[in-house]
Amino acid sequence: MGKRLAIIGGDAAGFGTATQARRLDPNLEIVAFEQGAYTSYSACGIPYVIGGVVPSLDRLVVRSPQEHRDRSRIDVRTRHEVTSIDLGGCKLEVRDLGHARTIMVPFDELLIGTGATPLRPRIPGIDLPFVRGVQTLEDAAELLRLAESMRSPNVVVVGGGYIGLEMAEAFVQRGARVAVVERSSHVMGTLDADMARPIEDAMRRLGIDVRTGLEVTGFDEREVQTAAGTLDADLVVLGLGVRPRSELAAAAGLELGVGGAIRVDRRQRSSVEGVWAAGDCCESVHLVSGRRVHVALGTVANRQARVAGINIGGGYATFPGVLGTAITKICSTEVARTGLTSGEAAEAGFEAFDVTTESTTTAGYLPDAPRARVRFVVEERTGRLLGAQIVGGRGAAKRIDVAVACITARMSVEDIVDLDSSYAPPFGPLWDPIGVTARKALSVR
Amino acid sequence: MGKRLAIIGGDAAGFGTATQARRLDPNLEIVAFEQGAYTSYSACGIPYVIGGVVPSLDRLVVRSPQEHRDRSRIDVRTRHEVTSIDLGGCKLEVRDLGHARTIMVPFDELLIGTGATPLRPRIPGIDLPFVRGVQTLEDAAELLRLAESMRSPNVVVVGGGYIGLEMAEAFVQRGARVAVVERSSHVMGTLDADMARPIEDAMRRLGIDVRTGLEVTGFDEREVQTAAGTLDADLVVLGLGVRPRSELAAAAGLELGVGGAIRVDRRQRSSVEGVWAAGDCCESVHLVSGRRVHVALGTVANRQARVAGINIGGGYATFPGVLGTAITKICSTEVARTGLTSGEAAEAGFEAFDVTTESTTTAGYLPDAPRARVRFVVEERTGRLLGAQIVGGRGAAKRIDVAVACITARMSVEDIVDLDSSYAPPFGPLWDPIGVTARKALSVR
Repeated sequence: MGKRLAIIGGDAAGFGTATQARRLDPNLEIVAFEQGAYTSYSACGIPYVIGGVVPSLDRLVVRSPQEHRDRSRIDVRTRHEVTSIDLGGCKLEVRDLGHARTIMVPFDELLIGTGATPLRPRIPGIDLPFVRGVQTLEDAAELLRLAESMRSPNVVVVGGGYIGLEMAEAFVQRGARVAVVERSSHVMGTLDADMARPIEDAMRRLGIDVRTGLEVTGFDEREVQTAAGTLDADLVVLGLGVRPRSELAAAAGLELGVGGAIRVDRRQRSSVEGVWAAGDCCESVHLVSGRRVHVALGTVANRQARVAGINIGGGYATFPGVLGTAITKICSTEVARTGLTSGEAAEAGFEAFDVTTESTTTAGYLPDAPRARVRFVVEERTGRLLGAQIVGGRGAAKRIDVAVACITARMSVEDIVDLDSSYAPPFGPLWDPIGVTARKALSVR
Repeated sequence: MGKRLAIIGGDAAGFGTATQARRLDPNLEIVAFEQGAYTSYSACGIPYVIGGVVPSLDRLVVRSPQEHRDRSRIDVRTRHEVTSIDLGGCKLEVRDLGHARTIMVPFDELLIGTGATPLRPRIPGIDLPFVRGVQTLEDAAELLRLAESMRSPNVVVVGGGYIGLEMAEAFVQRGARVAVVERSSHVMGTLDADMARPIEDAMRRLGIDVRTGLEVTGFDEREVQTAAGTLDADLVVLGLGVRPRSELAAAAGLELGVGGAIRVDRRQRSSVEGVWAAGDCCESVHLVSGRRVHVALGTVANRQARVAGINIGGGYATFPGVLGTAITKICSTEVARTGLTSGEAAEAGFEAFDVTTESTTTAGYLPDAPRARVRFVVEERTGRLLGAQIVGGRGAAKRIDVAVACITARMSVEDIVDLDSSYAPPFGPLWDPIGVTARKALSVR
């Protein structure tokens, strides 16, 4: 009999780790506990089911518990809630929700992949049943049920981050009247205000009532209260971000870090040997600022899980860090960001400047060439690219991945000007939006 | 009075150099000689005018001679052919074609940007007037005139590279019956055969008669002769690649290199002090193989011109090299490549392997998720990415620019797995086609 790996949490982090560890160690015994009924689903796909683009929530499930058993020999226990971790005794206390009993499960290695929970600030009425978060498939099923039970409901989305935006568009597609209330001066708070403006314009063109600089003060029967009066609401969707679910880890005595996320080293090891964490419940390091950050994203969870799984399986891997990359769109207006904004760069101690260009995502002489506005944040002395933001039409935002590679490789804008990037008229101008921005940065240095 | 910079050739290389040099040195006297009537046009846009997507050839002109005069104080002489370079005497012999006179023009610095000419192999009948190359706006105007004078003509494109493909699609859009004859086993010869296959399928779906592995043996009145019989042809378009126009340089005694291209150093300086070259007429260095290559592309010409212009203007810049990046599409089938293929890697002395993945350019659960097939060529010992090829639907090919950045930064596939790339369902799967290919490469190493 091999070692036993216990997994807490049955989504990207948990199963990513489990399947990777399995590949390296065929003798590992793997047991995974998931509180809910589903495993390995794309939470990012929820807006597309709400909007009717994807026909059912089932389509978001990447692997069912049975598939995990069959393909990777993982003993999957859904509807099992881990209630405490005994680090000294190397065992878990687990509540079998279906049979209302508690079991003790010993482990040799433990992976904590408990994810995150939507923020629910202490606002009066926030616990009313029509105020919903969007995190699990159970949340999504409930939202879908409510949405389907109403004809053209009034939906208020609280929070103008990318989840809020995607849910707002989804409810418009479903025939709802939608308002988005955002406390700060602009939606997509991780971008500069002027870069987020075209997204707000696209939302308004879609008929969304965008209220920025407005704080929600309370909820009551079918209304959302703000400093500027009340908004009708049959349904409220919270898109205020998430916090790490680290209560179990904290109670067991594991060290926590930024925002209560579980502290891990570069191999995804927690402060206790044999205990690992990955995904939305743990910290990352920002590759540019060097600071510890908490980033809750499926992509990061997957990459951290890969690293944790390799290390648990007896291999060696490290997770270098994140850039805070994000991308989304409203209709055909796309937006993306990575690395540091000017403000973040200054705050991290960089002397930096920014440049912005306006170009197109196809040759300018082709009809309806979509626009692209690109901003680079560049270190003064070295010309090193520290961050990028893009807003524009079709084909604009995904160019952020080139900036991701360049920032990761610590390229200067001169390096970027010299990149032998692809060119043909349907794919961009001769100087691509990325290249032309690098060139402008060089000319103003 | 400042120094005089003379420029031979009025397209990307020539004017790119001139405008860049002007920015650094306001006192420079700049005179530019162009044999034809146009300056600074997008030759890559010609297929889109032929196809009717762009309404007129004028739209392809980025800057007219007058604009160059007004904005950059460049003395532009169109219809002026430089007939010889006197390196010892630092002067040019120039034929004023409009006035049938010859003038001598002294220079302090000289930039040769004479471009390239379409290959016209010595096949019987190749000089018949219905056999046309596509290089200058004059060529394009003539093609357009011929195409407009015929109703549903038979067009035979000789050569299945990207220019051949784009011209074939353009003539289909114009209502022609089109055949493409390619000597090698597949179109897009810089890709592996199986990666080019989906492009051939897309061409056939468009009604193009694709003949691979077939050599043209001659041309005669309204027919193209091959080993497998004759093809009807009212018009023949040559897409056989180009050769550098370096006759003037050679006659003056400048050193030539690969394929007769002008040899330059990293600052774009020729073998003679004060004489520079940029664009299709000169050599480059391949960033992966380290070999000298001749790549005729507008993007490369622009970047080389930037470097030449900075150096002529008194600054310092170097051109690191090229990756042989290329991109094109037929209808919605896109294809791109960069770096080395497996064959090229072996030929350059690398021990390398390749991996191929099939994924999608949006989340797989979204309707009609476009497919993406990605191939990486990876060095065995180091895991370093040496080359990439992509074929797929909308959004697939432009991802090649991420590979371009990674190859340039000498990243390993492990580095690429760790990239904090953007993700949202409309933009890709959780593991992007690039990331998933890197991951597969890691797992097979």
